[in-house]
Amino acid sequence: MTSYLKMSKEELKSEFETVKKEYARLTSMGFNLDMSRGKPGADQMDLSKRIFDLVGNDMGFKNKDGVDCRNYGGLDGLVELKDLFSEILGVSPAQIIVGGNSSLNMMYDTVAQAMTHGFGSEPWFKQGEIKFLCPAPGYDRHFAITEHFGIKMKSVPNTKDGPDMDIVEELVKDPAVKGMWCVPKYSNPEGITYSDKTVKRLAALKPAAKDFRIFWDNAYAIHDLYDEGDSLLNIYDECVKAGNPDLVIMFTSTSKITFPGAGVAAQGASPNNVQLLKSRMQFQTIGPDKLNQLRHARMFRGMNDLKAHMKEHANILRPKFESVLAELDKELEGLEIANWNRPKGGYFISLNVMNGCAKRVEELCAGAGMILTKVGATYPYGIDEKDSNIRVAPSYPPVEEIKKASIILCVSVRYAALEKLLNEK
Amino acid sequence: MTSYLKMSKEELKSEFETVKKEYARLTSMGFNLDMSRGKPGADQMDLSKRIFDLVGNDMGFKNKDGVDCRNYGGLDGLVELKDLFSEILGVSPAQIIVGGNSSLNMMYDTVAQAMTHGFGSEPWFKQGEIKFLCPAPGYDRHFAITEHFGIKMKSVPNTKDGPDMDIVEELVKDPAVKGMWCVPKYSNPEGITYSDKTVKRLAALKPAAKDFRIFWDNAYAIHDLYDEGDSLLNIYDECVKAGNPDLVIMFTSTSKITFPGAGVAAQGASPNNVQLLKSRMQFQTIGPDKLNQLRHARMFRGMNDLKAHMKEHANILRPKFESVLAELDKELEGLEIANWNRPKGGYFISLNVMNGCAKRVEELCAGAGMILTKVGATYPYGIDEKDSNIRVAPSYPPVEEIKKASIILCVSVRYAALEKLLNEK
Repeated sequence: MTSYLKMSKEELKSEFETVKKEYARLTSMGFNLDMSRGKPGADQMDLSKRIFDLVGNDMGFKNKDGVDCRNYGGLDGLVELKDLFSEILGVSPAQIIVGGNSSLNMMYDTVAQAMTHGFGSEPWFKQGEIKFLCPAPGYDRHFAITEHFGIKMKSVPNTKDGPDMDIVEELVKDPAVKGMWCVPKYSNPEGITYSDKTVKRLAALKPAAKDFRIFWDNAYAIHDLYDEGDSLLNIYDECVKAGNPDLVIMFTSTSKITFPGAGVAAQGASPNNVQLLKSRMQFQTIGPDKLNQLRHARMFRGMNDLKAHMKEHANILRPKFESVLAELDKELEGLEIANWNRPKGGYFISLNVMNGCAKRVEELCAGAGMILTKVGATYPYGIDEKDSNIRVAPSYPPVEEIKKASIILCVSVRYAALEKLLNEK
Repeated sequence: MTSYLKMSKEELKSEFETVKKEYARLTSMGFNLDMSRGKPGADQMDLSKRIFDLVGNDMGFKNKDGVDCRNYGGLDGLVELKDLFSEILGVSPAQIIVGGNSSLNMMYDTVAQAMTHGFGSEPWFKQGEIKFLCPAPGYDRHFAITEHFGIKMKSVPNTKDGPDMDIVEELVKDPAVKGMWCVPKYSNPEGITYSDKTVKRLAALKPAAKDFRIFWDNAYAIHDLYDEGDSLLNIYDECVKAGNPDLVIMFTSTSKITFPGAGVAAQGASPNNVQLLKSRMQFQTIGPDKLNQLRHARMFRGMNDLKAHMKEHANILRPKFESVLAELDKELEGLEIANWNRPKGGYFISLNVMNGCAKRVEELCAGAGMILTKVGATYPYGIDEKDSNIRVAPSYPPVEEIKKASIILCVSVRYAALEKLLNEK
């Protein structure tokens, strides 16, 4: 297709007439579509239906250690799940804490406890202004936690290899910088997997603040769309090699393996960090829901079970992703008004439209009955300074709806670009 | 029986010889008994076995609002459980937040959030030294939360009607006093239910601190041992009448209704408080485990289901309590060396032995193979200044073991008293 950037004003006007007609046609169809939320669809959740047969049906309530999972106790979770999460996060089972239904909750609690009790340091709230590094675009709920505690967010731009490490290495010289959010594999929203070099540079950071921690949210650790997925270097091993074992705290969950609302979350870290975290958790709870942990332990007896299960997820998700990508290729390729990623896993496609056009695209899509993630939500303080990034979340709706939604999206991107170009001529 | 206080030295010596022989006989029997933990036994948890058939067996995953309980969302829980907890806590369903598996966790979070964000006030951590009132003896995990956050604990003695309100009314004149722990029904460990007058005086408190809150842990709200249980006045209604609607935050759970580790917890408060609590929770979590909530909603369709279920618990627990009480009556009545309560519900019997003897009794019991709750644990900072209170927890072991444990307990109480009296003669 001819690049919009090479069109004359007359050509642009003519193109705009065509696009406006197409947009009007779509708008008249009364769609009610939603690509805003990165949540699994009902068909994905159905893949785990048999988990409910694994507790309660005369199989007993004890795990392999003989713990009656119905009763109190077991602050850090069942041994079977420590084994499983140890394989996912790449640390020993003794370095795993298995929690409740939400890794976000574990991250929040870890930050909250650092605010009131530090990390082997003075409580963060006693240390004046503190700051976190926020690779952006990123996960809005990370940024929301930081903002809630009054922690100043410093945006770090992402490259195709992960956060720009030159900038990160510079910023951690500031002793007020206490933490950094990372989604290292199939990042939300860009689908980036950090390169080996990025992981090594992160692990070797020498922050001025001794109580600086990387919050490593490995939410999509095993969430490949293809047999050949991305591979992520084990950051903990690299931290140990660099003499920095306490630098990183890792998180993951089964939210997108079994159920978003009723999965199991875990965190892993150095022995020092784990001891510190548990010493605080003991005041917060007697223990997590071990029955739900037992369900998961009986369903996934090892990584092989888990991998087989994730292939079934991929079979459902892949056509949805490919449907969006096919439409983007067909309608936008060569126009020079947008670029997008082709993630091999995760939950999002990241679409960058012309600067100053993202909010307009969101508005146009809404006008045609299709909801996108709020533009700016993927940036600290909700502000995308370029007004360019759109997070496309194709997991939840059925594939027929994804197709329709993608058509609306592409027409809206063209519409907004033409408006802008015509205004500038 | 003859009071030990009226015995001559010779009589005491002779009695001590008898008691020592009996203690030696018990010690030789190699018992391994435990009355330390207030947790339900396996037979009680079996009462809820059918709950596992209520989710997963072709009954669907939607609640009556049509929410797919497997997926994300629903910060404050399912409407069915708001209805149920609204009846237990005595506020409207809109004033209920239904959470995860632990009311302790909700209490901790509420205190933690007040530390960092206040209660419509400056964060507590910015207000210098702050204090909580701690009716004692009380629940050790309440005191542990307070101590963890560096909040100074002020002990308040309990009367048979609840905390000594003359003292409470005096102490809340101190603007540093920000909170008070209460277990208002079948209190842990004394089994006291606050009198109507106590509830009214609490509700009418005029604390100097506007951000003072009563943490009303109604853990045993419906946990009667007899048809005629204690009744507790609705403190929220009294607060409203007294113009103090925001004074109290109430907590409860199904930990001792279904499963200690896998029940559902809730909190209830004024609309102002609930709005404030939710505005913070939204940063901490996307929502609680709604599938476990759905199990509970389908098992208990209203208060009648719940009451019938609690009678089955009472049928298991009552003989255990009566077994302890019968032994105390038989072995200690009239000796004037101990007194104890006769709770109509809850999980504990509170036994006060002669001042200075509780630790010795704990030690003697341990020597004979029977573990008691650590003496002092029921007091702020772990210190029972009188060294007198023993918390007896008869719920967990089978009734035959309770009988044996009660025999050891009574012999140890006599042993310790005789030692003391002989030393003083």
